[in-house]
Order: sequence, then C-alpha cells, then structure tokens
Amino acid sequence: MPPPIHFVHFQETIRCLSFTMAGTEAKKPSAKQSGAKKKEVKKETGLGLTHRKADNFGEWYSEVVVNAEMIEYYDISGCYILRPWSMAIWEIMQEFFDPEIKKMKIKNCYFPLFVSPGVLQKEKDHVEGFAPEVAWVTKSGESELEIPIAIRPTSETVMYPYYSKWIRGHRDLPLKLNQWCNVVRWEFSNPTPFIRSREFLWQEGHTAFATKEEADAEVLDILELYRRIYEEYLAVPVIKGKKSELEKFAGGLYTTSVEAFIPNTGRGIQGATSHCLGQNFAKMFEINFENEKGEKSMVWQNSWAYSTRTIGVMVMVHGDDKGLVLPPKVASVQVIVIPVPYKDADTQGIFDACSATVNTLSEAGIRAESDFRDNYSPGWKYSHWEMKGVPLRIEIGPKDLANKQVRAVRRDNGAKIDIASADLAVEIKKLLDNIQQNLFDVATQKRDECIQVIHTWDEFVQALNQRKMILAPWCDEEEVEADVKARTKGEMGAAKTLCSPFDQPELPEGTKCFASGKPATKWTYWGRSY
Amino acid sequence: MPPPIHFVHFQETIRCLSFTMAGTEAKKPSAKQSGAKKKEVKKETGLGLTHRKADNFGEWYSEVVVNAEMIEYYDISGCYILRPWSMAIWEIMQEFFDPEIKKMKIKNCYFPLFVSPGVLQKEKDHVEGFAPEVAWVTKSGESELEIPIAIRPTSETVMYPYYSKWIRGHRDLPLKLNQWCNVVRWEFSNPTPFIRSREFLWQEGHTAFATKEEADAEVLDILELYRRIYEEYLAVPVIKGKKSELEKFAGGLYTTSVEAFIPNTGRGIQGATSHCLGQNFAKMFEINFENEKGEKSMVWQNSWAYSTRTIGVMVMVHGDDKGLVLPPKVASVQVIVIPVPYKDADTQGIFDACSATVNTLSEAGIRAESDFRDNYSPGWKYSHWEMKGVPLRIEIGPKDLANKQVRAVRRDNGAKIDIASADLAVEIKKLLDNIQQNLFDVATQKRDECIQVIHTWDEFVQALNQRKMILAPWCDEEEVEADVKARTKGEMGAAKTLCSPFDQPELPEGTKCFASGKPATKWTYWGRSY
Repeated sequence: MPPPIHFVHFQETIRCLSFTMAGTEAKKPSAKQSGAKKKEVKKETGLGLTHRKADNFGEWYSEVVVNAEMIEYYDISGCYILRPWSMAIWEIMQEFFDPEIKKMKIKNCYFPLFVSPGVLQKEKDHVEGFAPEVAWVTKSGESELEIPIAIRPTSETVMYPYYSKWIRGHRDLPLKLNQWCNVVRWEFSNPTPFIRSREFLWQEGHTAFATKEEADAEVLDILELYRRIYEEYLAVPVIKGKKSELEKFAGGLYTTSVEAFIPNTGRGIQGATSHCLGQNFAKMFEINFENEKGEKSMVWQNSWAYSTRTIGVMVMVHGDDKGLVLPPKVASVQVIVIPVPYKDADTQGIFDACSATVNTLSEAGIRAESDFRDNYSPGWKYSHWEMKGVPLRIEIGPKDLANKQVRAVRRDNGAKIDIASADLAVEIKKLLDNIQQNLFDVATQKRDECIQVIHTWDEFVQALNQRKMILAPWCDEEEVEADVKARTKGEMGAAKTLCSPFDQPELPEGTKCFASGKPATKWTYWGRSY
Repeated sequence: MPPPIHFVHFQETIRCLSFTMAGTEAKKPSAKQSGAKKKEVKKETGLGLTHRKADNFGEWYSEVVVNAEMIEYYDISGCYILRPWSMAIWEIMQEFFDPEIKKMKIKNCYFPLFVSPGVLQKEKDHVEGFAPEVAWVTKSGESELEIPIAIRPTSETVMYPYYSKWIRGHRDLPLKLNQWCNVVRWEFSNPTPFIRSREFLWQEGHTAFATKEEADAEVLDILELYRRIYEEYLAVPVIKGKKSELEKFAGGLYTTSVEAFIPNTGRGIQGATSHCLGQNFAKMFEINFENEKGEKSMVWQNSWAYSTRTIGVMVMVHGDDKGLVLPPKVASVQVIVIPVPYKDADTQGIFDACSATVNTLSEAGIRAESDFRDNYSPGWKYSHWEMKGVPLRIEIGPKDLANKQVRAVRRDNGAKIDIASADLAVEIKKLLDNIQQNLFDVATQKRDECIQVIHTWDEFVQALNQRKMILAPWCDEEEVEADVKARTKGEMGAAKTLCSPFDQPELPEGTKCFASGKPATKWTYWGRSY
C-alpha cells in the first residue's frame, strides 16, 4: 500500500523557513534573486521541482503552488497569501459566474463578517456541523467584549433573520441574494493551500422561494454553472450528483455537488455544492409569507457556494513535473513571447518582432506578454514560464525572423508548431482552443481510468486499495455508510460516499448493496476524499 | 448655535426595534408589507420621511439609507448589511477603478484577514494609531488560541514582511499590488452607516518603488482616480490636497486626500487617501534591494484606499426630503418606467408601451426597469422610486400613448419633459447626462457657498459657528494645530485641518497665520469633520 499523504509536513517546513531562506532560494524561478548583475545572463536553470508528482504528491503540490508564484505561505498556519498569479484565475471565474447569476436575477449584497452567538446557535444541526471550527472575537483593543462574537464560517445564520424581516407576502418572493466574501473555518487537520485553509474566498448564494419546485430547479441551474466552471474553465471533469444523508449540508434538506477526482492520490474532492435547505431554516428563523390565497406559508430555501478550492483542484489535476499547467481560459497570460537572439543576429529585429507579435495577439483578444529581461537566458525563461503554467510559448529567433514565422510550443504536450506571421492571431486562437480541449480530454481519460464498478465488499476493498473512484450499488442507508466508514478507517482516512450521480447506470432488478447485502436502490460513487 | 448632531441615537433605536417592528413598518416604502391582497390598490402613500434634512440631519440620514433599502441595521452595533441597492453602487465604482489601476500595471492579490501580534506591532507610530480599534480572535471552537490573533484594520503590517521577501533587486521593482477586501476597526464613537462602521469594504493598494520620484508620481495618479470617482461618478465635488502632520497616516511620510464637505452639518469629510509612506515601513520591515550600481537601497512605498464611505458621502450630499438622489452613473436603475392606466383606457397598450420603452432603453445601454405591480397605485410608485433615488421616471398614460410620447420626470429637480417615442434613447441619454452634470453643479455651488476665507482668530471662530469650510493662512506648525483643536473643543467636536489644497490661492508676502500670528506658509482648509 502506498504511503499516506502528508500535506502538512512540507508546508510547515516552508512556513518556518520563509524568513530565514532569504538569498538561498536556489529553486525559486523568479527574477527576485539578489546579486544579479546587469548583463550577467544566468545560464544554469535549476528551476525544476525537487519532488515528482507521481512520487511525492503532497510535497509536489506545495512546491508547485509556491514556485509558480500562486501562493505564499503566511506566518499564521492555515492562512495563505493569494498572489496575483492565482488571484487572476479567481477573477476570471468571477467574470463568468457573476453575470450568469445576474441573468438569473440574483443580486449581490454584503452581510457582516460577524455573527452574534444567539443566531449562530439557532439551527441545532447546522451549528453542530460548524461549532468546532468557529473563530471567536473576544477583545477589542485592551477591552473584553461583553459577549464574544463569532466570525462567519458560512452566512445562513447571519442572513436569515433578515430574510424573515424582509419577506412578508408572496410578492417578496423569490428573494435571491449572493455575496462574494471571505469566511473562516479554524480547522486543525492538514491545512493545504486552496484545498483546506482557515480563511478562504467564496461566493455564497442564498435564495428563498414560495414553492419547492422553484427551489429544486434553481439548485440544478446553479450546479450546472459549477459544472461549467470546472469543465469549461478549469478543464476538470466533474460528476454531478446528490450527497448522501451523512454527507449533506448540516441542517439542509439535500445537497447536490460536482465531484472531481485526483488520480494521483485516489481521492475524490467535492468541487462545489448547491444545497436545497428545504423549510428547516425557515422554521427556525420564522421566514413566513402570506401566499396568494392569503394563507401563511413557509419559504423554501437554497444556499450554494464555490470557493478558491477550485484553483487547487485545477493545480492537482493538470500540473506536471515541470510545474503548473494552466488551461488557456483561466490563464492571465495565455501566450508568453520570448526573443531568442544569437550573436551577430539582428537582435533589434527580433525584439521588434516579439513586440509586434504581442500587439497582434492582444488586439485579437489574446492575453499575451513578452519577456525581454536581459539577465536571463532563453532557456531559463522557458523553464520559468513552464513552471508558471503558461499555455503557449512563442519563440522568435533569427531563423523565424527570416522565414516570417514564429515557433509556438505547447505547455500541455510540448508540441512545437511553426506559424506564419500572417496567420498569427487565427492560428494561435485555434491552438489555445485545442489546448483547452486537450487538457479536458486527457484529464477525463485519466479520471475515467480510475473509475471501478464493483458489486461486493471484497471488490470494494481491493478497489479502494488501488485508489479507485468506486461506483457501487448501494441500499442508501445511513447506518450502512457509517459502517463502511468504520470498517475502512486507517491512516489514509476512511472511505465514504462521494455522490450518487444524476446520470445513473441501469440497476438490474435484484442487485444487492455491496456493503449490506440489502436490495440496492442506486449507484453511488465511493472513495477516500479531501 | 444649532444643536449637535447625534447619529447614534436613531440608529440604536432602529437596531433595537428591528425584530419587534414586524408588521408595523408603516413608513417602509417597499412591497414587503403583509396583508396586501391582490388587486387591492394602495392609494395612501405614507412613504415620506419623518425627518427633514435641514432640521434633523442625523435622523434624516439614518432614515434615508434604511428606507431607500441601501442598508439594514444589524444586530451587532456598528455593523450594517449592504443591500443590493447600495452594493450595486459599490460594484459600479469598482468596474471603473479596477481596470484603471490594471492599466497602471497594479495587480490584484489577497492577503489574509488575520495578523499575528508580532508584525502588527512592528511599526510604533502605526500601531499606536490603530491599536485601540483592533479586534482580537482568542478562541476557536471551545479552545483558547496559543496567541491571540488580530483582525486587519489595514494591511501594511500584513503585507510588508512578504515585500521584504519578494524584493531583492531593482528588477523586482516596482511591486504594485491591490486587494479588494473587508477590514475591521472596532470603533466605539458614533457608528454611522457607510461613514463609520466597524467592518467596511475597501480596496487597498500597496506599492514599492526604487525612487521617491516614482512613489510621488503614483500618489497623485491614484488621487486623481479618487477625484474622478467622487466628481465623475458620485457627482460630489472634492478638494485635492495634503494632510497636516497631525492628520497624516500613522507611520507614513505624507498623506494626500480628496476632501468633501457636507453643507448641512458644516463638516468636512475625508473622501479617500493616497499616502506616501516614505522609507519608514521599509526600514521596520527591512524591504531592501540592490540597485543598478550594486548598492543596497531601501524602497519607497505608497498605500492608498477608498471605501464604502464614498456611498455615504453621496447620500449626504444629494439626498433630499423625498429620500435618496442617485447620480445616473452609479444608479443600478437609471430609469423607472411606470404605467399610468385609467378606467376604460387601453391598459394592455400602455403596458406594451412600457415594455417597449424598457427594451429600447436597455438596447441603448441605459439601465431601465418597469414597475408593473398591480397592488400599488402610480402615485405610490412615484414616491417609492423617488425614495430610492432613481434619476429619471417615465410615466406612460393614455394621452402619452395617443401622442406617441412618454413623460419623463427628473428626480433631481422635478422637471417634467415630454419626449417623442421616436427620439427616446437619444433624448433620455441626454437627460441622464444633464442630471449627472446638474447634480455636480448644484453640489459644487452649495459647497462653494460654505467656503469662507478668513485671516484672524475671531473670523475663524465666527465662521466655525456658521458651519463653514474655512480657508485660512497657516504657519503649518503641529503645535499650532494642536492648540486650535484644544481651543475649539466642545460638544460638536474640535476644529482641525482638512487639507492644504494643491490649488493654492496667492499668499501675499507678510500674510500672518490666523492662529499663531507667525508668518503663514500656505492656505489650509479647516473645519469640523467626520
């Protein structure tokens, strides 16, 4: 059995070293090293990762997010700095998602960071789910607060007292709000950049409807947007489905999710969730309205969120031993143009051609930049931008200049393509589309190779040991999932349900649950997870 | 002397009532009242404000922000809910500012909410300025934290240890980052929506340069963007200038600001600030670099921010006794179209004309909506949308239909204009531009009427009592400002410098400081302030 994954290890080391490593960061591929004299071109690259994805996934991941300049470790454990290279990805997803929800008449708002203990504790199941992770403010300046104040781990209890106030009649429905904000969950297990951090950025939508039908429909509309973020933007295949009773949102009616899978660790990862809260919170917070017949009714509610975790999933799925691999749609730099001058060659002509290339591409709406730094060799620059995951590199040397062409090199598969300068924008656009599609196709193929259909407990255990994403017929009983968890407990973590896919294979009459032997009612994905 | 302004009063009342007032909110102008039966058209309006701007400014302000549905009071004092009506204004300003700073090669990032005490306390003057207002997290779940963790009141100390790490050589400069985030300042005096709240939203830019000249230039470039936000978007005139030594940012070298003025209260208000931090933080946080000559140097730094306070200034300046008045450029609804059906008239035709009007305007890029609610009279709707400050109302009745026209009514001055349907988009666009300009012109005229040039202490005291914005010759000595503060202390608050305007009137040789009698070195604005 492969060794367990210890994320926390390398991170904590990094964190502790961060202020003592100054000047010794040989592997840091930026221009930020001291002692670099002008014109002294660095030939040694030394940019490679010290860990391989296949061998030490946890260490590899931590190294990639730092060396690609996405993340800086912070001096408070579990908190991370999102550097511009990752923040730009967040902004691009936001530029897609925000207009989409506005089309659905969902409006942005901003509720406070702080929650008073009274409302936080109003919904019993909900507070049980979050209480151990809640951070409490007890002091301001030198004064103790009269009552401690919680920092939102999520905003159901922050918002719903006001939904109760604002909603009176059926004309006030639906009420559809969203906010982009930070939330805090003071977790102590395995903090991992993007994937599990004590503070993270997300959007949280909170909607209230007159009928369950409307709520049900919205849950799926939002889930489809989450699928599109993963599949169309991050090029990560996901499975849409419903969470089990054990795994659903604390206090909700049912939870749907998009589930991704990390082949290297054999772990599923919940990509984003769209919950139908039913009328449970409405009952606790007295969110009532007078319906069209003049009768008092309770609203039906949803809440849904995706977070900066999305970025971590993308890194894990596409990254390789050269570093990050960015899908073109979310890359803040899609094309990096690098001059390759030679002795006696027309250096100025090459530089001009690079600038012209950037201009042509920019005008065509492609995010292109050039790297004219004179203290790094072309080879160093290749490695640097590969580490940062730029989808396409364009090299321009004397021969390219003579032939009125550029050389394009793909980050995803290393393929080299010569492109006539005259066709530049059209061909590069095609190439970027192709890279986007190829990343998705390759990731889907790898994910699909990990899916194992099983029918018995023995097959289940074997597949689990092989780090598979397991599709199994299940009786859908809470106790059975609890039992599976108990029986698979170990240092790698217990197996649990990931989701019951909406796209259900045929379940022949008489199929039995792999775990309980009772009649199976559905196919469900199982596995270890993040 | 007019009575002092007590903001806190009405707010706290509102806050305490918020959960007991259900069903009795007669003055709330939304459709959210219970008991409204279908087709029972409400004729009584009862929408007016209970306080007048000229009589009870503080209460008027609190009422406007609540009744216009910008703000909801929250159950933690000093925290406010930003409802979609105000959030949209914030987003529109962001859509202007964010691309502008990106053109300046400033990149967005996100640093953690939390600061460890060690770094927070590193810069002495800085921490003294913020320490009394810092909120501290001391617990997570049921566990005490080993060391308390502060919530950022601003992010200098959060960010600069990493600037020290990232900046090595001159090629790493300039480093220009910005973040959009929330900050917390646990103030106890007079919380006021937008203007002074314990949590607020802002952007904070933090930049580092090799030379003072570059830093100086950026300070002014950013200040110009802040001027444009106020003058071009919020239609609020501001004065650009430099803060006094007493009023500058704690720990910085100098502070520039845009200063607005609220004629009704006779108070200046700092609109946004752009600080040159000099090398002070660089020294404390060891932000050094090797310059082009290979010598060790210290960076020059700036920080600059504008916050949701901008929205409050706009409300105070333009609002009137009918409610909010929104400048068209920041209004999420610029035109509200209201059908005015009569008995026996072609109701369907009127509704169709309203829909067609909204379509035509939307296609022309104007933010237009219709109000087809059937349980409110046209008169009620007029008052409702006036309360919410929509710049232009379009009424369509049988006569308008017959004449192939619409009637437009301006929110700023109540003027009624008939517009031929054929010219709709062009004429409405002109009108909106005109309203935007008129709001700015009227506000500028009112502000200018409050400016009083004085030369002596007696004139100063008289002008202060008349709630003027005082322009006075000053010796620019810290002790003299401290002395003026001490001498003007009272229940309305002491007078202080607002700024020394960049646009300096002539200062004749031999002019004396109004307060000290020493030779004056500059003209400076003085007054009470928020």
